[in-house]
Amino acid sequence: MLAPLQEKASVLVEALPYIQRFAGATFVVKYGGHAMTDPEAARSFARDVVLLRSIGVRPVIVHGGGPQIQDLLGKLGIPSTFRAGQRVTDDATMDVVRMVLVGQVNQDIVSLVNQAGGRAMGLSGADGQLLLGQKLLVDGQDVGRVGEITRVDTDQLSLLTQGGFIPVIAPVAVDVEGRPLNVNADLAAGAVASHLKAAKLLLMTDVAGVKDAAGQVQASLDRQQARALIAQGVADGGMIPKLDCALQALEAGVGKVHIVDGRVLHALLLEIFTDRGIGTEVV
Amino acid sequence: MLAPLQEKASVLVEALPYIQRFAGATFVVKYGGHAMTDPEAARSFARDVVLLRSIGVRPVIVHGGGPQIQDLLGKLGIPSTFRAGQRVTDDATMDVVRMVLVGQVNQDIVSLVNQAGGRAMGLSGADGQLLLGQKLLVDGQDVGRVGEITRVDTDQLSLLTQGGFIPVIAPVAVDVEGRPLNVNADLAAGAVASHLKAAKLLLMTDVAGVKDAAGQVQASLDRQQARALIAQGVADGGMIPKLDCALQALEAGVGKVHIVDGRVLHALLLEIFTDRGIGTEVV
Amino acid sequence: MLAPLQEKASVLVEALPYIQRFAGATFVVKYGGHAMTDPEAARSFARDVVLLRSIGVRPVIVHGGGPQIQDLLGKLGIPSTFRAGQRVTDDATMDVVRMVLVGQVNQDIVSLVNQAGGRAMGLSGADGQLLLGQKLLVDGQDVGRVGEITRVDTDQLSLLTQGGFIPVIAPVAVDVEGRPLNVNADLAAGAVASHLKAAKLLLMTDVAGVKDAAGQVQASLDRQQARALIAQGVADGGMIPKLDCALQALEAGVGKVHIVDGRVLHALLLEIFTDRGIGTEVV
Amino acid sequence: MLAPLQEKASVLVEALPYIQRFAGATFVVKYGGHAMTDPEAARSFARDVVLLRSIGVRPVIVHGGGPQIQDLLGKLGIPSTFRAGQRVTDDATMDVVRMVLVGQVNQDIVSLVNQAGGRAMGLSGADGQLLLGQKLLVDGQDVGRVGEITRVDTDQLSLLTQGGFIPVIAPVAVDVEGRPLNVNADLAAGAVASHLKAAKLLLMTDVAGVKDAAGQVQASLDRQQARALIAQGVADGGMIPKLDCALQALEAGVGKVHIVDGRVLHALLLEIFTDRGIGTEVV
Amino acid sequence: MLAPLQEKASVLVEALPYIQRFAGATFVVKYGGHAMTDPEAARSFARDVVLLRSIGVRPVIVHGGGPQIQDLLGKLGIPSTFRAGQRVTDDATMDVVRMVLVGQVNQDIVSLVNQAGGRAMGLSGADGQLLLGQKLLVDGQDVGRVGEITRVDTDQLSLLTQGGFIPVIAPVAVDVEGRPLNVNADLAAGAVASHLKAAKLLLMTDVAGVKDAAGQVQASLDRQQARALIAQGVADGGMIPKLDCALQALEAGVGKVHIVDGRVLHALLLEIFTDRGIGTEVV
Amino acid sequence: MLAPLQEKASVLVEALPYIQRFAGATFVVKYGGHAMTDPEAARSFARDVVLLRSIGVRPVIVHGGGPQIQDLLGKLGIPSTFRAGQRVTDDATMDVVRMVLVGQVNQDIVSLVNQAGGRAMGLSGADGQLLLGQKLLVDGQDVGRVGEITRVDTDQLSLLTQGGFIPVIAPVAVDVEGRPLNVNADLAAGAVASHLKAAKLLLMTDVAGVKDAAGQVQASLDRQQARALIAQGVADGGMIPKLDCALQALEAGVGKVHIVDGRVLHALLLEIFTDRGIGTEVV
Repeated sequence: MLAPLQEKASVLVEALPYIQRFAGATFVVKYGGHAMTDPEAARSFARDVVLLRSIGVRPVIVHGGGPQIQDLLGKLGIPSTFRAGQRVTDDATMDVVRMVLVGQVNQDIVSLVNQAGGRAMGLSGADGQLLLGQKLLVDGQDVGRVGEITRVDTDQLSLLTQGGFIPVIAPVAVDVEGRPLNVNADLAAGAVASHLKAAKLLLMTDVAGVKDAAGQVQASLDRQQARALIAQGVADGGMIPKLDCALQALEAGVGKVHIVDGRVLHALLLEIFTDRGIGTEVV
Repeated sequence: MLAPLQEKASVLVEALPYIQRFAGATFVVKYGGHAMTDPEAARSFARDVVLLRSIGVRPVIVHGGGPQIQDLLGKLGIPSTFRAGQRVTDDATMDVVRMVLVGQVNQDIVSLVNQAGGRAMGLSGADGQLLLGQKLLVDGQDVGRVGEITRVDTDQLSLLTQGGFIPVIAPVAVDVEGRPLNVNADLAAGAVASHLKAAKLLLMTDVAGVKDAAGQVQASLDRQQARALIAQGVADGGMIPKLDCALQALEAGVGKVHIVDGRVLHALLLEIFTDRGIGTEVV
Repeated sequence: MLAPLQEKASVLVEALPYIQRFAGATFVVKYGGHAMTDPEAARSFARDVVLLRSIGVRPVIVHGGGPQIQDLLGKLGIPSTFRAGQRVTDDATMDVVRMVLVGQVNQDIVSLVNQAGGRAMGLSGADGQLLLGQKLLVDGQDVGRVGEITRVDTDQLSLLTQGGFIPVIAPVAVDVEGRPLNVNADLAAGAVASHLKAAKLLLMTDVAGVKDAAGQVQASLDRQQARALIAQGVADGGMIPKLDCALQALEAGVGKVHIVDGRVLHALLLEIFTDRGIGTEVV
Repeated sequence: MLAPLQEKASVLVEALPYIQRFAGATFVVKYGGHAMTDPEAARSFARDVVLLRSIGVRPVIVHGGGPQIQDLLGKLGIPSTFRAGQRVTDDATMDVVRMVLVGQVNQDIVSLVNQAGGRAMGLSGADGQLLLGQKLLVDGQDVGRVGEITRVDTDQLSLLTQGGFIPVIAPVAVDVEGRPLNVNADLAAGAVASHLKAAKLLLMTDVAGVKDAAGQVQASLDRQQARALIAQGVADGGMIPKLDCALQALEAGVGKVHIVDGRVLHALLLEIFTDRGIGTEVV
Repeated sequence: MLAPLQEKASVLVEALPYIQRFAGATFVVKYGGHAMTDPEAARSFARDVVLLRSIGVRPVIVHGGGPQIQDLLGKLGIPSTFRAGQRVTDDATMDVVRMVLVGQVNQDIVSLVNQAGGRAMGLSGADGQLLLGQKLLVDGQDVGRVGEITRVDTDQLSLLTQGGFIPVIAPVAVDVEGRPLNVNADLAAGAVASHLKAAKLLLMTDVAGVKDAAGQVQASLDRQQARALIAQGVADGGMIPKLDCALQALEAGVGKVHIVDGRVLHALLLEIFTDRGIGTEVV
Repeated sequence: MLAPLQEKASVLVEALPYIQRFAGATFVVKYGGHAMTDPEAARSFARDVVLLRSIGVRPVIVHGGGPQIQDLLGKLGIPSTFRAGQRVTDDATMDVVRMVLVGQVNQDIVSLVNQAGGRAMGLSGADGQLLLGQKLLVDGQDVGRVGEITRVDTDQLSLLTQGGFIPVIAPVAVDVEGRPLNVNADLAAGAVASHLKAAKLLLMTDVAGVKDAAGQVQASLDRQQARALIAQGVADGGMIPKLDCALQALEAGVGKVHIVDGRVLHALLLEIFTDRGIGTEVV
């Protein structure tokens, strides 16, 4: 009868030192994919975020919303083209992107986290000029209001996280004239984590982790190994931008980057509070 | 040559005591109408708000957005009906209301104030459950997701205003299950001012003020006079809800309510820093 | 493969809310028996205490030491007699009791906790007059320097716990003239918990818990049930004083009392961070 | 009808940024001449000072009192001689100077400011050794207890201004043995402003400002221009010491020096809160 | 050889508890008579005050100046009359009183204390409206600008004493219109002590203390005994106002009043730090 | 009659500046010898310590206990040998040393100081790892658990002294594995003073002070003189280790070391608060 008790005890003994270590630490989570579209996974995610907050971690969420944008563009009969994976964003498209990300997806996540017992605060880059950006040329071409982030107002995020809030950020930046810019969500999460010098950046994906040439998921990679996987062409199309994002964040002072399998329920807790983790960490 | 100087001096001598008196005071402004739709008026409004903030006043803005909502509903081919002045709001309409107010109008005001040198923070009722509400029956009838506000999280607003921010609030509340509710902007501003026990509630309109039976604009009304104008049917259709809103706010502890002519440039400054003011004050 | 992960996740989801709830809470632990005499159990106990401290709980330890006292009395050839379970304590015996408890057992526990990574601070009742007491008559008879506690200097304990220390208290009180008094360790722990209005009092024993008339260990008892077990003579000789101690502590404002099976490794963690606990809780 | 309102608005829009900029700033005012002897001008001055204080500026007043000293010396039959504009000050004269400046003129200004609603605190150089000085030779000659200031206790002035007081300083310094010294009021004001690194030093005069060779009052001079006017002999006898004083203060870190026409009512407000000012600023 | 050492030790053992008890306590001292006119006594007084301040006592000095006033009145040929011990004070006399007390005597004491190593701050009743008063009728007759104190701005004195200053107060009050009033120094000291609820009021005199009917100096009197000595006509003309002043101060909450023989060097220290004291204490 | 008063006054005038100077200063006192064994001397010592504490000094006591250790070793039949003045300390002896110092002598001093009105806190080197040490070889030989101190946790002592406590330290250190070490009390006091950079280290002895070659007690020695007395063989066997200890403490930043004659009642007060002191100071 005592065996299961001792297993419980060993989980606790394993987890408690992480809890102490992460008290007051900032974790930036890129949220999207299955964990956002599946209702049970979404509730499990929200519960994890609130539990993290409850023990003193400061989670900051950055989300995407491509499918929802596509949906409203369709209803309004506005066609989209893409260049190198980026949506060409004219002014009419930008209005739709902003309305969907800021006025729909963001608000739904805020309510989801609040229903799990947290105090989420929805933010866009315009709020207090949180995300200042500039236009991003893609392959040297102007693709409209697509942008990259040049400054993050970390004071604002500190004020909110110290006040007990969980910031939920839509990846819409503003330029110096106050006009909106459409930013890729992974890059936005990386920029936020980098400027905050977050303890962790967690990128939620719909795959088991980064695989090596033999197709084996790697629990941990150092930067050199990550660069080698990219150079050798082992990392596939979807994973290369995430590894790039991870490497940039580590250079900028982020403690660790985790590529997490968002299809596993409570993936965040398992990645953070167990020695082996889930998915791949890049250090 | 000295005459204009002494006039300047008298404006200053008149204004400075107000500046002292209002340092640290909270002013809630219902923003809409001409002052929102005319670009010069909008910039003049933003400048006034930032000047107020610069001398220690804590402005909180609540805005409407009816025409913009109507516009997107039209593009999406969603018809609207009204009951007693309230838009009947089914779920599809609510999604549009939220997207337009939170994801478009609010963001435009935030950028406008930021461009004038302020630090605006866009908020909806979902953010940190800022505005908790319940469904509002209109003439005893369910009109969908139309709501009234039952609680305002004033701690959140204090945190932001003490942090130097100018909150800009879209009148979308949430119910206890986290679902959105469409709230009339005047009523939302009144509720925010009441819960904050604001020093002033300023309702921007497109008229010169409240008129008496002789058609004369009144500079100041006490509550009894305001009630009499309503009872006598002197106040017209558009003014009655504003006077009701004013009376409720005063009962709840708001210091003074000003019905301000938003067509006058710098109407806010003139109402606040001159002895006679502009428009009608209700005390 | 995911099953064990989800078990880990469920242990964490179960434990984290307790961690939040107990941040800053004071737990008084009566330490003794197998958990003190068995080296592995002692190290497991010390690790648990340090883990509790690391996540913000404030543990306070009160210990006994009867066998060690008996040992030195034997070496010095000082005979002991007992009355109603209390050692008759003349001045020579008192000197030995104090030397063993304060100068040996207490110091060994302090070092054990320090080796586990904590900052233990050994205390006796004389230190800053922590435990003020008076002589206790046993069956109306003077049994020498046996005492009961009348006041606990909780400010001192707060200073130390806020300073990051884990107080380890030897149950030697002082009377108003500064002379030492020998106090039963269970009673001392109860008095310390009561004056601190601790969230929990944990009494470590060498049995599985409180049993009902059918010999079944009870996971939880309310006060009425505890009183009934005493009245019905179901609780045996060793358990009655512990239940009495628990009932008095609850009356004095202690949140909950746990009678914990000290023979189970990590008994403290399991009792605190699992829904079912281990041993018997009295509420 | 709207025109005068917009003029009021433009005065406010012009003034408010100054108000923000000067919050917490220290302004040292040399007070004397017409603004001190004319009762209406004196009340207008006191009102300006109190208004400045009310919006967060920290005014510090330094005053003269030559005519009043002359009056009491006359009544006591004590003759005076002057050397290079400085009163030769033997011990009997010093006693009179101190009594008049500290015990009469200073006290009258304190009461004037208090009557206008301020909290004035009269100070001499002896109070807390506010103004430490040494004897000043005039043309190499000992002229008795005439002195210059070598140290100002700025901590004391900060304590008082942070406490809400308006310091009113009589220009009587003390030497290291505690004996009084008679200091020129312009120089005393300059020394106080220099040690405080005041944002502004305002010297009140009875002329319209500094004139150029063509007799035109200059609104603004830089240091080079000021030095040129002195070198060219354009500045007349009364203005040269004020320009010298201004140049020394600017070198010592004072932000700006204003030579203000004290005959204009509310000259202080107009100089500070309008873009063009009144009199001459030296930068 | 050890005997003198043990005497020293006994002085210290006697004095130290007083030092602890009086840390942070306010002592108001009425300063005048021999201790003010004799240079050695004056230096000894200043040294005592600075020593008191150095060990955490907050001394506040109130002084008189009758002989010095008489001297200047004489030089100016202004005659004086007295009614019931009060100088009839027309406006010309008031100017002289203020100049002498504020501009001469006060400044000399300030310099004396500063030379002994303290930080004295000279104050009159006008400074920050420290002493607000009203005209005092003497035997129902108007005697000009003779006044009594109705309010003391204790916040100002606290600001100064907390800032390390020793306030030195000239007994010139102001009425609500800001005009000066001549106040008896004993009464002024009593009013200051009463409003501060000082731990002690020390009245320096030129006699050995209060005597009983047998001519014996009393070390200690309670209020009843003091009243009896007045009623029985035992207290002589000079002592009755001091006893009245003492009784009023005790009623107002002053801890103890000491009538101290200012002819004894270091009378303050001896009264305060020895069990028997010097002079008479009224409790 | 005034003569004794002026003597009292001169003791106070002499003592008060020391009181000011030592407010907040830490004094480490090595306590032992006659002042510990004679009941009247012990009470006088405790009173001095409490008086020092009452006026803001922070006393820290380090004590010895050789005779008491010898006594219990005798009763238990454990023989002792010494090498170069250090007791050879096997494990059984170490247990006795720890029990006597921590569980008897320390507790008696704690009670003594508490009875005099202080708040003493008994500490050993194990408490919060206060005294970390390592084995000390004597003449290159292992003498068992004899140790020297390598680190003192001064934060802990600051926490306690700021909290109003008087630490009483038994000279039992711990090594990095938590095992006890027996440390010479003079060396322990020196190490504590050195790490605290105490203002004073006072070593209580049973002699009149350090004598020169002529047998004359020296009131004050500088380091060079102290070294000369050692080199010349003038200092006798008992004094050399104390002078060594003093020299090391001065090198480490202790302000002054006093070798005090503990046979004189109130020796501490006399050494500290008189210009000439008692015993010998080394500077």
